Amino acid sequence: MSKNSKINMEKLVNHCKNMGIIFPGSEIYGGLANSWDYGPIGCELKLNVKNAWWKKFVWESENSQGIDSAILMNPKVWEASGHLASFTDPLMDCKECKTRHRADKLIEEFTKNQVNADKMSNKEMETFILTNNIPCPKCGKCNFTPIRQFNLMFETNRGVTKESANTIYLRPETAQGEFVNFINVQRSLRLKVPFGIGQIGKAFRNEITPGNFTFRTIEFEQMEHQWFCKKGTDEKYYDFYKQYSMEFLTSLGLPKEKLRFKDHDKLAHYAKNACDVQYEFMMGWDEINGIHNRTDFDLSRHQQFSGKNLEYLDQVTGEKYIPYIIEASYGLDRIILALLDNAFEIEILEDGSEREVLHFKPSIAPIKVAVLPLIKKLHGDVAKKIYNELKSKFRAIYDDTGSIGKRYRREDAIGTPFCITIDDETINQNTVTIRDRDSMKQEKVKVDDIFNYLNNKFQG
Amino acid sequence: MSKNSKINMEKLVNHCKNMGIIFPGSEIYGGLANSWDYGPIGCELKLNVKNAWWKKFVWESENSQGIDSAILMNPKVWEASGHLASFTDPLMDCKECKTRHRADKLIEEFTKNQVNADKMSNKEMETFILTNNIPCPKCGKCNFTPIRQFNLMFETNRGVTKESANTIYLRPETAQGEFVNFINVQRSLRLKVPFGIGQIGKAFRNEITPGNFTFRTIEFEQMEHQWFCKKGTDEKYYDFYKQYSMEFLTSLGLPKEKLRFKDHDKLAHYAKNACDVQYEFMMGWDEINGIHNRTDFDLSRHQQFSGKNLEYLDQVTGEKYIPYIIEASYGLDRIILALLDNAFEIEILEDGSEREVLHFKPSIAPIKVAVLPLIKKLHGDVAKKIYNELKSKFRAIYDDTGSIGKRYRREDAIGTPFCITIDDETINQNTVTIRDRDSMKQEKVKVDDIFNYLNNKFQG
Repeated sequence: MSKNSKINMEKLVNHCKNMGIIFPGSEIYGGLANSWDYGPIGCELKLNVKNAWWKKFVWESENSQGIDSAILMNPKVWEASGHLASFTDPLMDCKECKTRHRADKLIEEFTKNQVNADKMSNKEMETFILTNNIPCPKCGKCNFTPIRQFNLMFETNRGVTKESANTIYLRPETAQGEFVNFINVQRSLRLKVPFGIGQIGKAFRNEITPGNFTFRTIEFEQMEHQWFCKKGTDEKYYDFYKQYSMEFLTSLGLPKEKLRFKDHDKLAHYAKNACDVQYEFMMGWDEINGIHNRTDFDLSRHQQFSGKNLEYLDQVTGEKYIPYIIEASYGLDRIILALLDNAFEIEILEDGSEREVLHFKPSIAPIKVAVLPLIKKLHGDVAKKIYNELKSKFRAIYDDTGSIGKRYRREDAIGTPFCITIDDETINQNTVTIRDRDSMKQEKVKVDDIFNYLNNKFQG
Repeated sequence: MSKNSKINMEKLVNHCKNMGIIFPGSEIYGGLANSWDYGPIGCELKLNVKNAWWKKFVWESENSQGIDSAILMNPKVWEASGHLASFTDPLMDCKECKTRHRADKLIEEFTKNQVNADKMSNKEMETFILTNNIPCPKCGKCNFTPIRQFNLMFETNRGVTKESANTIYLRPETAQGEFVNFINVQRSLRLKVPFGIGQIGKAFRNEITPGNFTFRTIEFEQMEHQWFCKKGTDEKYYDFYKQYSMEFLTSLGLPKEKLRFKDHDKLAHYAKNACDVQYEFMMGWDEINGIHNRTDFDLSRHQQFSGKNLEYLDQVTGEKYIPYIIEASYGLDRIILALLDNAFEIEILEDGSEREVLHFKPSIAPIKVAVLPLIKKLHGDVAKKIYNELKSKFRAIYDDTGSIGKRYRREDAIGTPFCITIDDETINQNTVTIRDRDSMKQEKVKVDDIFNYLNNKFQG
């Protein structure tokens, strides 16, 4: 068996489509702007990661609570957050072929990421592009307009009369839901600072250059945890959440050696400290998680713009203050992509044949177990009975079509860690064969022990 | 103890805010169009209902699969579905005070629901309003413009240049995601008709009159299951899903006597059969679930508009056909509202005091168990140890503030079914007291038996 080098992004995308993991969005209509639909296998994987995150960040975290806030928020939220004024991309038009481009991306692609345009002003980017004669990727000429800032928030209108219509926005991040609910959560649960609020939900950005499969999309899901703490304790908690993030990501089965911290080169004006956790994708290292010390910026701005007092009153000391916030923000779709990237292998077996397999950690595998009667007519009834007992406990598949070898391969290809084969011995001796996806070894297990056998495999 | 008649919607809304169940959306900015944020207690309730639905409709249902499709879809989807042309409300302006109203609602409110405007044409509604001299609810005059149809879909624009900008829509229902993925799901999982596809997700409607707390909102969550079957078997499955729906809703703890079927008075042009399941809210009977025989309308339209062949090929008979669809559609927020409506009581105790309590069925209760040291200094450490062991298995709360009686009341008010009290006997005899929310009776349980004791209570 050898790890195969034939794998690339195109292979993974095709595998995901063919196996019911991820489909192109609205595919029968030619798609929409790099949108993706999670299929039967992908959505179970997503649910497993969401559940693991919720458990670790809401249930098991010290003094933490969840919320589920609306995607559509009062537009003043985005004034206060700064998104209306500055959540923008620097765009230039090619005067020759009329296509539009991100100036920072033009520079980064031209210099093969040797120059980090994040650090440059618009003027500096324009000058760099001109002096290096960077060509338009479409027509090859270098004749661009000056940079204009384009806001990434999707706009829509609430209300039915023109006079009453208000411009509202699809949230570009879930975090503001935690911030504007800070006082409501604190008071209703009588929480003492420090405490945390976690949320999982959709966010939207009108990206000009979505791409790399599900890595950058106009619609995506975030898992965010905001830790409200007193100034002075913020650096300690920032370090804590860096470690906690690493713990979470490795608990999903991502290997430590493919994860690294990367400090932000340029801090946002409000941030005291910020880093990404990057994963080594097949296309290179890139961000899947960010940890940010946002100081008291967010709550101070919301206090200012709403006119509501957002100070916390310490009942013991009598002190009043606006807490600092340590944010741990996860791109759910990026984590799923990292898990697929890490799990996908095309193995060459001893007989020279190929085996496509997804080596998910059993606890996050989309389908936990497949129940396979060796011969449908002879073993189907017993197999159905075993399947029916398992299906409310674990996500299970029943499959009686095709040779047993082919059925094993199908389960390998969607990452099912265990296949239970029902044969004559099940009927005569009350035992089944359980095959392990990774070792391909088989074990005899008594029918009555199946649940415990499997349950043990899914712990941790 | 007596069930109290003091309960009304305003009391429930206040209770939900004060207890961290549901907050007004963007509240510090004065809200947004009847939007709501689920707080720490509400979001756990929602998760429990989602998990119960997913288990019943995806894991345990015969031959069913889940998906998670994008909210933003190719706009041709809404041409094919008919939403672009006819997902509209009949609106009239009052010429006197310039306010806008739904003609059907004007009639229904004026006649106290004795006249069902759903059955009337625009012309008939205009005539009815004029001849009955129905007044404007704002200014009292009867001087309206003719009816105009207003589309309920929220529009936004994808793309950055004006030339490239495409109008796209926030999906007004999740169902189209299942329809456009029919062939992808069927082929990748090699499914045989009949099979089902389930999905949980957000949908958006620009309603002119949102209201009744979370009953009608511009942003809401749906749980939908589409059953693809052969024409001729559709009526059997329609009946099956009516019963299956009732089973699901009662399994959440909604009483049978507060649920009823209500056939649609007017069938949509494509529907062969359609009914709602209504719940008896405090404001009256209203829809929480719909079951629809949609025939082959949806897939036929998508085949026509996409030019893709959406026929199913029966491998055994060689027959090709477009399946019929039986849809079971659930308003998640409405189910949550029904559960709150049903669970909420203000009881008068023997001593004349009031007890606010949410009588959730233990399996769906947001917080499963509260761990309460009788005296923080003496019993806090042992209590923390027990809490830490429970918190990864059940959603648990640790609370050491205030008298034990007050702490019980707080847990009653958020529906926590079990309170574990840690006292001297825990330290000396290794037992705890477990208090039942509904009977308020207490039982002694050995520390080692706590997990099994609780786990048994949450089955079924």
